[in-house]
Amino acid sequence: MNGLRVIPLEGLPEIRDGDDLAGLLLDAAAAAGGLESHDVVVVAQKVISKVEGRTVSLTDVEPSPRARQLAGDEDPRRLQVILREASRIVRTRPPLVIAETRHGFVCASAGVDASNAPGRDQLVLLPLDPDASAAALRARLERATGVRLAVVVTDSFGRPWRQGTTDVAIGLDGLRPLRDLRGEQDAAGYELHATVIATADEIAGAAELVMGKTSRIPAAIIRGLQLDGSGTARELVMPPERDLFR
Amino acid sequence: MNGLRVIPLEGLPEIRDGDDLAGLLLDAAAAAGGLESHDVVVVAQKVISKVEGRTVSLTDVEPSPRARQLAGDEDPRRLQVILREASRIVRTRPPLVIAETRHGFVCASAGVDASNAPGRDQLVLLPLDPDASAAALRARLERATGVRLAVVVTDSFGRPWRQGTTDVAIGLDGLRPLRDLRGEQDAAGYELHATVIATADEIAGAAELVMGKTSRIPAAIIRGLQLDGSGTARELVMPPERDLFR
Repeated sequence: MNGLRVIPLEGLPEIRDGDDLAGLLLDAAAAAGGLESHDVVVVAQKVISKVEGRTVSLTDVEPSPRARQLAGDEDPRRLQVILREASRIVRTRPPLVIAETRHGFVCASAGVDASNAPGRDQLVLLPLDPDASAAALRARLERATGVRLAVVVTDSFGRPWRQGTTDVAIGLDGLRPLRDLRGEQDAAGYELHATVIATADEIAGAAELVMGKTSRIPAAIIRGLQLDGSGTARELVMPPERDLFR
Repeated sequence: MNGLRVIPLEGLPEIRDGDDLAGLLLDAAAAAGGLESHDVVVVAQKVISKVEGRTVSLTDVEPSPRARQLAGDEDPRRLQVILREASRIVRTRPPLVIAETRHGFVCASAGVDASNAPGRDQLVLLPLDPDASAAALRARLERATGVRLAVVVTDSFGRPWRQGTTDVAIGLDGLRPLRDLRGEQDAAGYELHATVIATADEIAGAAELVMGKTSRIPAAIIRGLQLDGSGTARELVMPPERDLFR
């Protein structure tokens, strides 16, 4: 078939610190017919973070005066964790904080999230190095299957000016995150200017369409892409000198 | 099959003002096996604009002093057209202009584009009412096929802080653009806060993965979604009072 398939990986258990994520994904993929060469395995960030123990218990957090000020009517300990995860605060409107993370991503709450956390007083943080997480997972999946794969780690980010979140790539390995058409010609023979497509983010969004936050499907396969080269999700971060919105 | 298929609609001719777009899409869909109930037909904005005659010839444009100032080394007539299409200028760095359109979308050049234009001195503008364009196309496709469909009109938008464009929905009919999970519970039983997913934008991005700017595939089918209700792409515009980035 021409085109793509987007296949949900169902039946995964609730993921815990230290779980064998590659093994669980392989089981789920086997139930869906198995992985094929050039499949992209898309995994929600929260699953990666839990396996890597990137969670914080609110009972261990002492909020600073700044955290209390930003919290509005919400729990100031949560704001304290956000401040700790943020390398730069971009906008605030209590209790909302838009911040830049250590990776250079700009997102709500510096990626700190309470939903789908392992316990009521737990927060889930972004992985320390999601590209490395993706690379390690890809290596394990390729070793087990013997086929060429890519892995994309995704999170749901809001956007300025538009309602709702879309899933984007925060870590990846085995594919190029950007498709650069500069220098190519359009159908009429004119050179295309400034046309760089964030393919990895579109892959992340496509996977979200079958993943769903509430139905415990934290992973999906995108089948039908031609994988060529590799890269990192850090390439998706706009360099400060080109950023009109810093 | 569980999951989605993303099917490119190939073999479409170069689209011109007044062409029967619905008929051309039906022919291309027939060659791909035909449309099925609950298919989403995704169409690139440029095709809609061309059919609707939303193009401008640069030879008819007289640049203002402001346009000359913003143009840098580029053609000031192009900047004049952008200023005409913009309802508000958001950022400028000559020759780059980020502007709000009449529809409320914030994007580069107020949506004015020279690539894939019908002629060397032509610019393509956004449709005047892309939701109406989508509704009219959906009505024609549903009448011809007798099945329940949705239509999404897409364009490639840049994003603050991230490299590359992703395709987003600028017009739609036959589906809800936002999936609102507020009040639903996550897998652990906690209520999800502020979780609204811009499904229509993820659909647009998924379609872009098979469309490609240079290979003359301006449309695709997304198959496997459960269509429920309808809405407009205007719902994707962040209301000014909630927008931290105006």
